[in-house]
Amino acid sequence: MTSAVKDLGIKRIITTKIEHHATLHTVENLAKDFGIQAEYIDILPNGNIDYQDLSTKLPSDIPTLVSLIHVNNEIGTILDIKRVSDLCRHAKALFHCDTVQSIGKTNLDVQDLGIDFLVASAHKFHGPKGIGFAYLKKNSMLQPMFYGGEQEKGMRAGTEAVHQIVGIAKALELACANLESDIHYISELKQYCFLELKKVFSEVKINGENTFFNLLNVQLPLSEEKTSMLLFTLDMKGIAVSRGSACQSGSIKPSHVLAEFLSAEEAKKPSLRISFSHFNTKEDIDLLIAALKTT
Amino acid sequence: MTSAVKDLGIKRIITTKIEHHATLHTVENLAKDFGIQAEYIDILPNGNIDYQDLSTKLPSDIPTLVSLIHVNNEIGTILDIKRVSDLCRHAKALFHCDTVQSIGKTNLDVQDLGIDFLVASAHKFHGPKGIGFAYLKKNSMLQPMFYGGEQEKGMRAGTEAVHQIVGIAKALELACANLESDIHYISELKQYCFLELKKVFSEVKINGENTFFNLLNVQLPLSEEKTSMLLFTLDMKGIAVSRGSACQSGSIKPSHVLAEFLSAEEAKKPSLRISFSHFNTKEDIDLLIAALKTT
Repeated sequence: MTSAVKDLGIKRIITTKIEHHATLHTVENLAKDFGIQAEYIDILPNGNIDYQDLSTKLPSDIPTLVSLIHVNNEIGTILDIKRVSDLCRHAKALFHCDTVQSIGKTNLDVQDLGIDFLVASAHKFHGPKGIGFAYLKKNSMLQPMFYGGEQEKGMRAGTEAVHQIVGIAKALELACANLESDIHYISELKQYCFLELKKVFSEVKINGENTFFNLLNVQLPLSEEKTSMLLFTLDMKGIAVSRGSACQSGSIKPSHVLAEFLSAEEAKKPSLRISFSHFNTKEDIDLLIAALKTT
Repeated sequence: MTSAVKDLGIKRIITTKIEHHATLHTVENLAKDFGIQAEYIDILPNGNIDYQDLSTKLPSDIPTLVSLIHVNNEIGTILDIKRVSDLCRHAKALFHCDTVQSIGKTNLDVQDLGIDFLVASAHKFHGPKGIGFAYLKKNSMLQPMFYGGEQEKGMRAGTEAVHQIVGIAKALELACANLESDIHYISELKQYCFLELKKVFSEVKINGENTFFNLLNVQLPLSEEKTSMLLFTLDMKGIAVSRGSACQSGSIKPSHVLAEFLSAEEAKKPSLRISFSHFNTKEDIDLLIAALKTT
């Protein structure tokens, strides 16, 4: 986004308040440092973006970048990329899609979807930490973010971490090779988890509608006090779940994402974000449920 | 350097024409994009900087950053860091030292030396590729180069490559643990190499004076044609030497470093840059000499 502002003359960014906090932080800084106009699309009560609001806000003479997350990292709601890219093309706006949560977990055809920019992180699909990639549509005219050597076609100076590059490529290859069976397996885990939760907490409620197969964000009928202890207790038992994003793990502040579309009363209720991978089993979920029972 | 210009109001950079090409590239771009005044200190015929020229150029009302390489990456000449930092402090200029070639190969005490900024790369001391570190003096007021998460005390956003961080720390620990014996061993290899070269090419000449223990840059009495083939032949035999920096390996353009302080006639002569590590042996050097003989 920073490069788009500096190199492409972008003066306005359209996004939402439920983006990854790194995106929100970037937009706030671009507004402050470059006078960029930031506009936020409404979020519906089901956690999805209001496409009507987007199409109303899009038309403008101001050079605009739309930056939206594909699969929300906290609740798993899914953006209709094709719909957004059509709206963007019509309004001559550029479209950056934060696909960090979805690359390696679903098939994306950048040409068909009409995305201008997307990004990925290896550690999200079981690759090494500290490496990712960015896709830029041909002739995007973006400049490198810092000066130096001519590595990566001049776009990213610095001696390459070859083992990291090999690692991300192999991880993506493996992720894609087993995609269908993994999706099936993980979807069943998620379904099992919700049904088991329901047995213990009849009032359990999922945050967001039609969410991604690997993520379950649920409201639990627990007191605030119990929930604070809960995360700690689960952690001690080797169960890693969170209340917001991993980057804010340990924080007891309510999630900025949930605060955006839940009622004030619901947002106050303790929610848990549970992620599943093909390395998880039903036994893992049984452990979680047992731990929740004893809270 | 870019951050110093953006965040600290630096308007002038004093450097040399024998810096690493990434530094030269950065200075050229900062001059172009931010109107920074770039000044280049003279290089003496022995490959060292002209300290007199530095002390003449330093005094100024213009906020200045001095950026100099500690051990030159192509010829191994050594900067007197303490002398430069004293000059800088006196002139109220900031001092950035490119210590990529020397960290892990010599002891540096940043407090004693009075450096404001220095940088290191793990692959230069047998650590993993694609990770390095920067030292910033306390309260340097530098801002992060891009927005995002709060990692690395907010200075470098992005999920950390934990294994890379562990790798650089361990590599530096090992490099420092055996420093004295390594220096002794490698210095002997360098001496041996020069003496053996001398036996074959009586006219061989070292580029630069009082050069670092791990680097030997020599002029060879060979034709231009033979030298071009030579690098290729050596490569085929598994011998990795170069004519300039590794980043420009394969290039037959004369080195920008040598061109700066050798006579026009000498700069035209083929030169080889030979680097040694504790993994090298006298047998490696014998192989190199044998290969050079048959050229």
